[in-house]
Amino acid sequence: MNLRSVVKVLGFLLLVTSGCLLLPVLVAVLYGEPDWLYYLIAAGAGVATGGLVLALLRDAPDLHLREGFAVVAVGWLLVGLLGAVPFWLSGEIPSFTDAVFESISGFTTTGASILSDIEGCSHTALFWRALTHWLGGMGIVLLAMAILPLLGVGGMQLFRAEVPGPVAERLTPRIRETAKRLWGVYVLLTALEVLALKLAGMSWFDGVCHSFATMATGGFSNNNLSVGGYGNPAVEWIIILFMALAGTNFALHYLALAGHVRAYWKDDEFRFYWVLILGSSAVIGLALARVGFFASVHDTIRHTLFQVLSILTTTGFGTSDYLLWPPVAHAILLGLMAIGGCAGSTGGGIKVMRALILLKHAKLEMVKMLHPRAVLTLWFNNRALSPALVTNVLGFFLLYMLVYISGTVILTLGGRDLVTAVGATAATLGNIGPGLGEVGPTSNYGPLLGWEKWLLVMFMLIGRLELFTVLVLFLPGAWRRS
Amino acid sequence: MNLRSVVKVLGFLLLVTSGCLLLPVLVAVLYGEPDWLYYLIAAGAGVATGGLVLALLRDAPDLHLREGFAVVAVGWLLVGLLGAVPFWLSGEIPSFTDAVFESISGFTTTGASILSDIEGCSHTALFWRALTHWLGGMGIVLLAMAILPLLGVGGMQLFRAEVPGPVAERLTPRIRETAKRLWGVYVLLTALEVLALKLAGMSWFDGVCHSFATMATGGFSNNNLSVGGYGNPAVEWIIILFMALAGTNFALHYLALAGHVRAYWKDDEFRFYWVLILGSSAVIGLALARVGFFASVHDTIRHTLFQVLSILTTTGFGTSDYLLWPPVAHAILLGLMAIGGCAGSTGGGIKVMRALILLKHAKLEMVKMLHPRAVLTLWFNNRALSPALVTNVLGFFLLYMLVYISGTVILTLGGRDLVTAVGATAATLGNIGPGLGEVGPTSNYGPLLGWEKWLLVMFMLIGRLELFTVLVLFLPGAWRRS
Repeated sequence: MNLRSVVKVLGFLLLVTSGCLLLPVLVAVLYGEPDWLYYLIAAGAGVATGGLVLALLRDAPDLHLREGFAVVAVGWLLVGLLGAVPFWLSGEIPSFTDAVFESISGFTTTGASILSDIEGCSHTALFWRALTHWLGGMGIVLLAMAILPLLGVGGMQLFRAEVPGPVAERLTPRIRETAKRLWGVYVLLTALEVLALKLAGMSWFDGVCHSFATMATGGFSNNNLSVGGYGNPAVEWIIILFMALAGTNFALHYLALAGHVRAYWKDDEFRFYWVLILGSSAVIGLALARVGFFASVHDTIRHTLFQVLSILTTTGFGTSDYLLWPPVAHAILLGLMAIGGCAGSTGGGIKVMRALILLKHAKLEMVKMLHPRAVLTLWFNNRALSPALVTNVLGFFLLYMLVYISGTVILTLGGRDLVTAVGATAATLGNIGPGLGEVGPTSNYGPLLGWEKWLLVMFMLIGRLELFTVLVLFLPGAWRRS
Repeated sequence: MNLRSVVKVLGFLLLVTSGCLLLPVLVAVLYGEPDWLYYLIAAGAGVATGGLVLALLRDAPDLHLREGFAVVAVGWLLVGLLGAVPFWLSGEIPSFTDAVFESISGFTTTGASILSDIEGCSHTALFWRALTHWLGGMGIVLLAMAILPLLGVGGMQLFRAEVPGPVAERLTPRIRETAKRLWGVYVLLTALEVLALKLAGMSWFDGVCHSFATMATGGFSNNNLSVGGYGNPAVEWIIILFMALAGTNFALHYLALAGHVRAYWKDDEFRFYWVLILGSSAVIGLALARVGFFASVHDTIRHTLFQVLSILTTTGFGTSDYLLWPPVAHAILLGLMAIGGCAGSTGGGIKVMRALILLKHAKLEMVKMLHPRAVLTLWFNNRALSPALVTNVLGFFLLYMLVYISGTVILTLGGRDLVTAVGATAATLGNIGPGLGEVGPTSNYGPLLGWEKWLLVMFMLIGRLELFTVLVLFLPGAWRRS
């Protein structure tokens, strides 16, 4: 591993983040809040460090495959740490651990919060919170589309053929082209949502913050009761629509905008995504209707779709406490938590694509039992998947389960009850936000112990960066000089 | 599929079971209980049906590969139904559904019971309950050693090289040789346990019943409070030892008895089995010691080892209510529930061998991330595993998870809470017995609804028969004539 190249890229990341820290400075000035100073200090520190590093390592060689892992994993952590500084300096979040938790939760688009009184925060802090989501979401799209396929991680190679992107092993400038197009889609959809929310009666400020959180499938809301707190069905429907869009592969949106609207329906993952959404909603909706949980059919449909999409896309917004819903809703939502959004979306989890490949593989193995000599192929989007890619996806799934189990054991070892431990691990590893038990949708992560928060921070990063990129760094071979 | 061959073998199975039904007749006579009549009636019905079938289908051709699935799946169900008849006729279990639940729970060595007052049952019924375990355990060893490898199911092909067994595709008479040797081991170990329990102070009757339940990793006890109800530490230590032996591959016991004692330590699965036992016990034991749960170190060690082995080997005996133990015990025991015993033992679950292969595969995939061009091989017992076998094991794991999730969703759909639904599915699919929540270690399955019991009966069969053998029957191709 060439550490100089890695550090150089990290320096660049610090510069970019510092630039973004100037936006909340503007917000502070606009609302006449004293917070501008702390955001400016953080930006200054970032510029100084990043600039110094870049100046010293100007001539470091380009990145190679192996360094990609380190840049992605350490970069996200570093940006998260810098983002925590203004929360802490301004005193909005007095504990540094809490500030890091909130910031990493933002950048990983998790949306798990340690705040108990969100409405008591300054506009500046709320805006920065939402912006960390939005920037994180942007980073994820880049990661999924351009970097992970190069690293050959967990089946993401599938994108190589679908997305106009780089094919060489070096991280070439062609990444930039792919990135530009996808970010264009991202910005456009965010702008549309802001407009729609404003028309539905939200303030510009709340509209921007919630649009950032929706498109990034983050989940931070400015209301203590999340989106439900606004009591505005139109707002809820708009967020339902944009959560569905944010959970979709952005490459499909790009193709649709370029005139190929049928690309959606040709995509196996997209169709399965909607089977999951509509199938789960139908079962849960009927269960709610049977016990007469909501007063009207409209309420039942809206709340069901909202919660199903919020969990499946790993956004984590809420309009109703699903822990009070009938048990079948718990079972289904817990399953959806693990699946997450589509590959190439801003959603977390193992991704709909991987879940579909796992299902197809299981079916294939059953058919093989009956026809032991048959040569069977796994098809995805009319292409035969190589066995190497399939075992790669299977390996991903196993690692995911292992981290899940380890997290649960470690948290129970500290004395948490099983439900809270499972919920906290699932919610952070899947980048969802609200969990179960003591960290359920009506509570927050504030009362957890310091070491528990750092552990969950690690899970957010591991989940967000598709496991391998983080876990691989623990293998001794990763640090040998190539 | 040649149905005539299948029915012929099923007829033979009925005859064998009818023969076994004569043993409880002897017990009834010995204890002067009136139950002998009902067991004789059941045996008579079995002999009549089985004999008639055999006479009519004398000239049906030998079984082929594909028919193996049907014989195994339908055979176990049929034997279970016949075994339920005396429970029901004698009035010991007034509901036929309950009688079938108890009988299938016995034959699949699950040990889940619908009885609330076990001590109120006749000796005859208790003996038959224990005997169903023992016969089921015998069947499982035969299945794992001789039939599954032929069917190429879930990685069990590994045995082909290890166990002197058949290699051709027909179910040849060589199965009989393998079976005889392994059953010799099984009978010997059972006899040793009976003797040891008698010496420790148990009655011959309780000793025989508990030995049947231990060696089959079943879990039916004659005491309402399970093994803990005897309050005899020596008995508990003996059962700890024999649970550990019953959870081990019987081929290793055979090799050891034939003089190759080192075969144990050369076996990767056996070593990992002990890593799991000792590792889990150490963590749980320390957690119990920290809160001072038991009065003495001896009690802590004994109860910890007992519960760990009871869950890991899927026996389901109890000496202490682990739901009252610290949370980390819940997390670890829930994990052990899914793993189960060694392949080729009488234990259920996914098997230690598969768990180990899954772990090795996950590690391999991580190494591949760093060295994308390296050709890496998965080693097991000094042999390279073929990729086909590895994907087979992965497919097995996926199917297991799918059935698990489906079971939980169906039970919650009926209104059960999530913990009970997860617990009941895990406990029956893994052939463990006691679950969580309403079906926890201090309760029983009696209060469940009729359809829930039949669903769980299906899970016991699916889990016991290694999924594929049952699920494959649902594929349309299984019923085409070859």
